[in-house]
Amino acid sequence: MKKLGVLLLVTFFSLIVCLSINAAQPRPEPTLWQVYQQSLSSAKYVDLTHTITPAIPVWSGFGPSKFEPTINPKTGQPYNYQKDGFEATHYDLSTDQLGTQLDPPAHWNPDYPALDELPATFAVRPLVVIPMQEQVARDRNYHLTVKDIEDWERRHGRIPSGSVVFVRSDWSKEWPNPELATRTKFPGVTLEALKFLHLQRQILFHGHEPLDTDSTPTLEGEAWLLHNGYTQAEGVANLDKVPETGALVAIGYPKFKGGLGGYARYIAICPPDWKYGVSVGQIPESPLQKADKPLHWDTKLGVRVR
Amino acid sequence: MKKLGVLLLVTFFSLIVCLSINAAQPRPEPTLWQVYQQSLSSAKYVDLTHTITPAIPVWSGFGPSKFEPTINPKTGQPYNYQKDGFEATHYDLSTDQLGTQLDPPAHWNPDYPALDELPATFAVRPLVVIPMQEQVARDRNYHLTVKDIEDWERRHGRIPSGSVVFVRSDWSKEWPNPELATRTKFPGVTLEALKFLHLQRQILFHGHEPLDTDSTPTLEGEAWLLHNGYTQAEGVANLDKVPETGALVAIGYPKFKGGLGGYARYIAICPPDWKYGVSVGQIPESPLQKADKPLHWDTKLGVRVR
Repeated sequence: MKKLGVLLLVTFFSLIVCLSINAAQPRPEPTLWQVYQQSLSSAKYVDLTHTITPAIPVWSGFGPSKFEPTINPKTGQPYNYQKDGFEATHYDLSTDQLGTQLDPPAHWNPDYPALDELPATFAVRPLVVIPMQEQVARDRNYHLTVKDIEDWERRHGRIPSGSVVFVRSDWSKEWPNPELATRTKFPGVTLEALKFLHLQRQILFHGHEPLDTDSTPTLEGEAWLLHNGYTQAEGVANLDKVPETGALVAIGYPKFKGGLGGYARYIAICPPDWKYGVSVGQIPESPLQKADKPLHWDTKLGVRVR
Repeated sequence: MKKLGVLLLVTFFSLIVCLSINAAQPRPEPTLWQVYQQSLSSAKYVDLTHTITPAIPVWSGFGPSKFEPTINPKTGQPYNYQKDGFEATHYDLSTDQLGTQLDPPAHWNPDYPALDELPATFAVRPLVVIPMQEQVARDRNYHLTVKDIEDWERRHGRIPSGSVVFVRSDWSKEWPNPELATRTKFPGVTLEALKFLHLQRQILFHGHEPLDTDSTPTLEGEAWLLHNGYTQAEGVANLDKVPETGALVAIGYPKFKGGLGGYARYIAICPPDWKYGVSVGQIPESPLQKADKPLHWDTKLGVRVR
């Protein structure tokens, strides 16, 4: 009897201790390296960026850009692998509004930050992808509405503040057709939708596939954004390869002093069971894989190709 | 007696259930959005990138680069805020080996990938910072040794595979003194240390503050890396503002076709209690803060300034 009582007490107190461990001691937050090991290394990475060549679509008001091999100033000859052991590239870029972009507000308003003045916190964010490709298939001048955003929220919940919101139109499926840059009717985002995303949902920035935010004569959406201190992404690619919710986006852009837009890099970081993308270690990274053909300068295309 | 026995059994089985919940049901891995909320949003972000201007140090074999306002091809006049409502930038960049860099192996070996051919998994990685600034203070031509790496591991544990390893020398504290690019003695990384990091520790890539990997006549370290399919970072900044262990690094670089190096972006993501850096929401991001002075073109400096 006495023994049984002692055993009961011991077991009972063990239960209390066990329950209190469960209840009162939540597992400590993982360190950033644990976050990488547990979540980021097994994620699927999808590039949302167009490759920049001299032939990609660009507004005629900016004119063409040119790539050349870097010249040795002593000889006037291009550096080349055979003779010099290395090559480099000379870029004559008529505009920083080229390729996939991150427009800082200083593109339109000199009172606000340029690209090199954005905070370092423009680095990794939750990624929201709002689809409107079905509406665009019926009307190529369709512009995203507040209702489209509310429909997304009914399916997935409230858009997180501080997130990056990319609008999928499938416009970029015709890229790099240069005619894309000449169209006056293209998928856009209404001013009301932009105001909703920024004023009601406090997003970091939105992005779209075309090279302009809307097809109004005054570019009213871009005007409102950039005149009021907001940033935006343009020329975003591969939005058909990422989930509408649950991914992150890594944001990169060159730090040119007084820079006003281009050459940005967006990479989606998707859940490990996502059907597209590549995980860390899935393909050779270090060393990288040899290609079938060597890289060489193509004088006709004006770019280094294989 | 009988009641006590039943009570003992019930309590005992409750304990078993409680323990098995603890043991057999680990908390499910957080979703990527939870990872952002719990870990990334409170982290401290530190930019490791130099701002690119026409006056930054660059090898004389590449020659100078030039920035200009973008010209309206119809008028031959630069676009400007007052007249056109916007501005843009024309870059004439003599080399892609400019500023903070990510060298793909195709810079030296055309059989391996160029910048636009790197996997999308070059996005976010654990960041290791190995200090050698004290050795460099005594010998400005000091090169990182395997022993320096082993000393780091004795303090912090084994370098994680797939990580990015930046070598702190404090060389960049004199940036942007153009004389930096003319020095023949500068802090480097020995070939043995590079081989150890890649062959024994399977890192993604290493990076250093100077514009070359070592000061040997054949650039033996860079030669070994790029001839064998490895990448490297050059011109990395602010390594005195990040911890030696426990941070991540966001990696960004423009996707120029056949690109061989420059204009990269590295942002360190440090633990929330780190003394340097800025957290999400700590300073205005959307809208951004107005500056004291407007941005304008400085014809003497050849760049847009405030």
